[in-house]
Amino acid sequence: MTPDELDRANPAGAIADAAKRCSNWGRWGQDDVLGTLNFLDEGKRREGAALIRRGVSFSLAQRFDTNGPQNGWRRRTNPVHTMLSSGLDAEFGPPEFPHGMGGADDVVFMPLQASTQWDGLGHIFDHGMAYNGRRASAVVTSEGDQLTGIETVADRIAGRGVLLDVGRAIGTNGELPDGFAITAEHLEATIAAQGESSRVGRGDLLLVRTGQMARTRRDGWGDYAGGPAPGLSFTTADWLHTREIAGIATDTWGFEVRPNEFDRAFQPLHQVAIPHMGLFIGEIWDLDALAADCAADGIYDFFLTAAPIPVTGAVGAPVNPIAIK
Amino acid sequence: MTPDELDRANPAGAIADAAKRCSNWGRWGQDDVLGTLNFLDEGKRREGAALIRRGVSFSLAQRFDTNGPQNGWRRRTNPVHTMLSSGLDAEFGPPEFPHGMGGADDVVFMPLQASTQWDGLGHIFDHGMAYNGRRASAVVTSEGDQLTGIETVADRIAGRGVLLDVGRAIGTNGELPDGFAITAEHLEATIAAQGESSRVGRGDLLLVRTGQMARTRRDGWGDYAGGPAPGLSFTTADWLHTREIAGIATDTWGFEVRPNEFDRAFQPLHQVAIPHMGLFIGEIWDLDALAADCAADGIYDFFLTAAPIPVTGAVGAPVNPIAIK
Amino acid sequence: MTPDELDRANPAGAIADAAKRCSNWGRWGQDDVLGTLNFLDEGKRREGAALIRRGVSFSLAQRFDTNGPQNGWRRRTNPVHTMLSSGLDAEFGPPEFPHGMGGADDVVFMPLQASTQWDGLGHIFDHGMAYNGRRASAVVTSEGDQLTGIETVADRIAGRGVLLDVGRAIGTNGELPDGFAITAEHLEATIAAQGESSRVGRGDLLLVRTGQMARTRRDGWGDYAGGPAPGLSFTTADWLHTREIAGIATDTWGFEVRPNEFDRAFQPLHQVAIPHMGLFIGEIWDLDALAADCAADGIYDFFLTAAPIPVTGAVGAPVNPIAIK
Amino acid sequence: MTPDELDRANPAGAIADAAKRCSNWGRWGQDDVLGTLNFLDEGKRREGAALIRRGVSFSLAQRFDTNGPQNGWRRRTNPVHTMLSSGLDAEFGPPEFPHGMGGADDVVFMPLQASTQWDGLGHIFDHGMAYNGRRASAVVTSEGDQLTGIETVADRIAGRGVLLDVGRAIGTNGELPDGFAITAEHLEATIAAQGESSRVGRGDLLLVRTGQMARTRRDGWGDYAGGPAPGLSFTTADWLHTREIAGIATDTWGFEVRPNEFDRAFQPLHQVAIPHMGLFIGEIWDLDALAADCAADGIYDFFLTAAPIPVTGAVGAPVNPIAIK
Repeated sequence: MTPDELDRANPAGAIADAAKRCSNWGRWGQDDVLGTLNFLDEGKRREGAALIRRGVSFSLAQRFDTNGPQNGWRRRTNPVHTMLSSGLDAEFGPPEFPHGMGGADDVVFMPLQASTQWDGLGHIFDHGMAYNGRRASAVVTSEGDQLTGIETVADRIAGRGVLLDVGRAIGTNGELPDGFAITAEHLEATIAAQGESSRVGRGDLLLVRTGQMARTRRDGWGDYAGGPAPGLSFTTADWLHTREIAGIATDTWGFEVRPNEFDRAFQPLHQVAIPHMGLFIGEIWDLDALAADCAADGIYDFFLTAAPIPVTGAVGAPVNPIAIK
Repeated sequence: MTPDELDRANPAGAIADAAKRCSNWGRWGQDDVLGTLNFLDEGKRREGAALIRRGVSFSLAQRFDTNGPQNGWRRRTNPVHTMLSSGLDAEFGPPEFPHGMGGADDVVFMPLQASTQWDGLGHIFDHGMAYNGRRASAVVTSEGDQLTGIETVADRIAGRGVLLDVGRAIGTNGELPDGFAITAEHLEATIAAQGESSRVGRGDLLLVRTGQMARTRRDGWGDYAGGPAPGLSFTTADWLHTREIAGIATDTWGFEVRPNEFDRAFQPLHQVAIPHMGLFIGEIWDLDALAADCAADGIYDFFLTAAPIPVTGAVGAPVNPIAIK
Repeated sequence: MTPDELDRANPAGAIADAAKRCSNWGRWGQDDVLGTLNFLDEGKRREGAALIRRGVSFSLAQRFDTNGPQNGWRRRTNPVHTMLSSGLDAEFGPPEFPHGMGGADDVVFMPLQASTQWDGLGHIFDHGMAYNGRRASAVVTSEGDQLTGIETVADRIAGRGVLLDVGRAIGTNGELPDGFAITAEHLEATIAAQGESSRVGRGDLLLVRTGQMARTRRDGWGDYAGGPAPGLSFTTADWLHTREIAGIATDTWGFEVRPNEFDRAFQPLHQVAIPHMGLFIGEIWDLDALAADCAADGIYDFFLTAAPIPVTGAVGAPVNPIAIK
Repeated sequence: MTPDELDRANPAGAIADAAKRCSNWGRWGQDDVLGTLNFLDEGKRREGAALIRRGVSFSLAQRFDTNGPQNGWRRRTNPVHTMLSSGLDAEFGPPEFPHGMGGADDVVFMPLQASTQWDGLGHIFDHGMAYNGRRASAVVTSEGDQLTGIETVADRIAGRGVLLDVGRAIGTNGELPDGFAITAEHLEATIAAQGESSRVGRGDLLLVRTGQMARTRRDGWGDYAGGPAPGLSFTTADWLHTREIAGIATDTWGFEVRPNEFDRAFQPLHQVAIPHMGLFIGEIWDLDALAADCAADGIYDFFLTAAPIPVTGAVGAPVNPIAIK
């Protein structure tokens, strides 16, 4: 299916159809909480480890500060970092500790979707149903996600990472324009352009670079929070499903193309990918330094660890992913 | 020097002497912000990668929730996680999105020292001086650490990790009692007991297990926040310095033995290690699952990534360290 | 009914009976959101204003800081106040503003029940029902109280206040012991002891002093958060209802006697008072300075304003009540 | 002095001159922490109480939610209110309490200048000096204001309020345009237009309405945070000083006209008013409902209580001011 074949007036129908085709409900048993991370096994970690050749490492996290994409919409602010004590107190204030010791200490307030993050499986529901056919109300209460909280995958996300730099392969000056829908054909064309190290298969952690973050780095996020952006087309659902990837992350706020590809819709691919596939989705990842290195040496796969901070019951969690080549 | 030889009445003198012996000021240039992480190079990462044999991974993070060691002292609370929307809203509340989509979203408030964390180089000062001979006031203001904020090491901390399970080697039932000061001799004895894979050298990330967290897991933290605990003796400063480790972490709230080994003192080893050595110190790491595996297979080194969340200007930062064997 | 006559094994039955006797559902129409604040009218405000004779004012708020009763239970911490900038930055830091101006700025994180506060009508439900016979789910979602949020009473709570200093009238050294259940008889005895200015009637704001806060001021809150305390007996429900008071506040964490008067119960009087009566309940009010003045001049009524901070949708709200005599 | 006579290139000189003329340093002793609130005495409260004629009350607080003027600048967000539990949990979630009780609970994170607020005397410094000639560093550390924290005036701010509705008297359709500098002449003209009840004198709490909030209510705050607004001219410093008012509040973000009246300046009137005069300044007050009532009955004075939430050490504090006529 191509974007042109979507019935723009009927997102619900398209979602229902894709959900049926791409469902992983029951695939790993009724008690499963890992979703597509089941594809990431010890063999895959060994395969990833073998990709560490030079020992160079890249952080894929944006800095967590007020220069981020949030603007208060849905009560999501950028992270607010404040000091409990500072070097000025230590140098000029009244002594707080004996023997000349001084300390600085700090605090953060942040929505868990504020910056570089993983969506947990409790983040999105379809008609009140969560991953694996559970009722949303039985999974995520006001006390957090009781079953699929991000802590359940605290030790899992380490393996082979693959970068598909669609912005570089298909875009202009390394960037796709806002509103550009990346299709399965674009993904395959990028793999073809990048070569063998870009093959994507079972258990891989797939990183898709659109180039939008390079643009926001240059121009600022402004008052972004969900405006137009390049991203995955709704029509990639089947490609993502059949590849049996363990997770996917993009350098955008919302993973999918924005505006979405239906007349009245909000993040329809999420509605298939999270509750039906159990797919782990990363957002606001900074892929630029890694991408430059991959372009330079022509090798697009690497060892990747992306362990979320295990806030108990979280439906999303900050992460500082590390790619090592 | 042994703990018995410390002049308990004169922490300031002992600190000054150790600081002189163990200083790294200027070692990597006047502009250095990396401290002992300079020891962790690409070769060390390759060495670490070679330790991934089975592909099994361990999270070394405690869960981030209200069951932690903080009690409000120094305004440090345990993390407070709240939902912006839940599965109950999605299932029973008014529809927020079109086409039957529902979402859950969340927020966290937490002191950056609340749970599993790295201390940054701006965390501790000696008589108003920060790492590398800088004035504390020039480094950490109310807007955060302007030079050595944790974001400066966002991509660095991946390499060879080594576990010294002192609790198992020297303690009873795998645990050292509270107030037990671990000396260089204890560390060496543990290395000897554990064997070749435990050697500690330049660029390594050293993990020291005391067993206290196993105790708090069993008994609860209660109202802990800095009470008695096993930990490193002040006298280990020279050992830590001459080994040229890249960083060290323990399974305790405060790294050093508590109460400290002087009559009136507070964390004197910090005052040497952070501002003078530029040593990265991790605290409240959960080493138990990893330790059990090491005891089982007799291999105490592994690949370790421990990338802090890069909160801009932070003097400490949450981390979910991943050890892979 | 006296406390002795309560069937300690059957709180649900006692609650249901009291709810039937004391219900105000429908009394002010189906759309009412004000509950007992309907009793507080302009005439009552004029009556209260006439009580301002000397022009002396008293704050009835506890200081909002970490020395409060919260300990993290139910994710309620004490307020955490941090600075965005301080006088040290202004005096010693880099200039932030032109012409020598410096500024200090700050932030607070606090549960809305953390300190001196009003409970809103959306705070407590009985078997899923909220005030005025509404379903709880239709009133308070994750986005807050959609109907009876505290902002709906932002301009109402000013009128005649009356202090019943039960601690002084009945207790020892001005304090009732923890676990002491204040009955209607104790309230009437206090009125009799205090004299004519203590009469309690329609539209009044009733303050009941137990003396517990004087005790916590002396001894510290410790790790309080809902432990034993003096407070209103469950059996006062009818007295509170028939007096037609506009609101009531106590100098305790939880208004009712703790432990509660049933074998397995939690705050049963709340379950009658808030959802059925629509009674506004204030907690953690500091009545000691006012009480000392009342004891000195023998006048126990005054003008009272207690306007909550109108956090939109809040089910509780901080307040600094001001009594003026 | 008129705005035209200001040397736009020399704010520092103008500030220094005005500070000399308007200083209250030492006026109430070296230990004073109350500043102009010293003018507000018991007699003034009695005078204010006599103005309660009808018993009608007005809240002057904006609602505290995400629809406010903050945009993250200087780490000031709008208040973020989240639920710890909701009516959905109570009705549909697992029972948390016995006997059918359900509860909703909530939390707020907010900069203390986020919404309707008082500036404390530690909010602004002039060349490192705070009110009453104290060094800024001795007053406000990272632990808050050690001397003039807002809690020191917790019980003071109740007395006679006077509204000068400059927007209505001088503006168009009740609103002054952004950038309009209100001078002493405008204030006097408003008094003359409004009549005897508008006289302003020693100990009064002065409210100045510009009409900007009516505009933001109609048009939204957008991405405001300190943009153009009507407000007090720098040249009103002497008028404010000689009137001996106890405090002043406006319906704007920043009290003074924005942009300020010098070429390169930031809030120069603050720099005179707070550290030199010790003047209490309220910002983001909603004066519209009160103003409509005053216009209707021609009476512009009233009883006013405006007790800040006593966050210990706060340099600003939220308030729900209540005017009663």
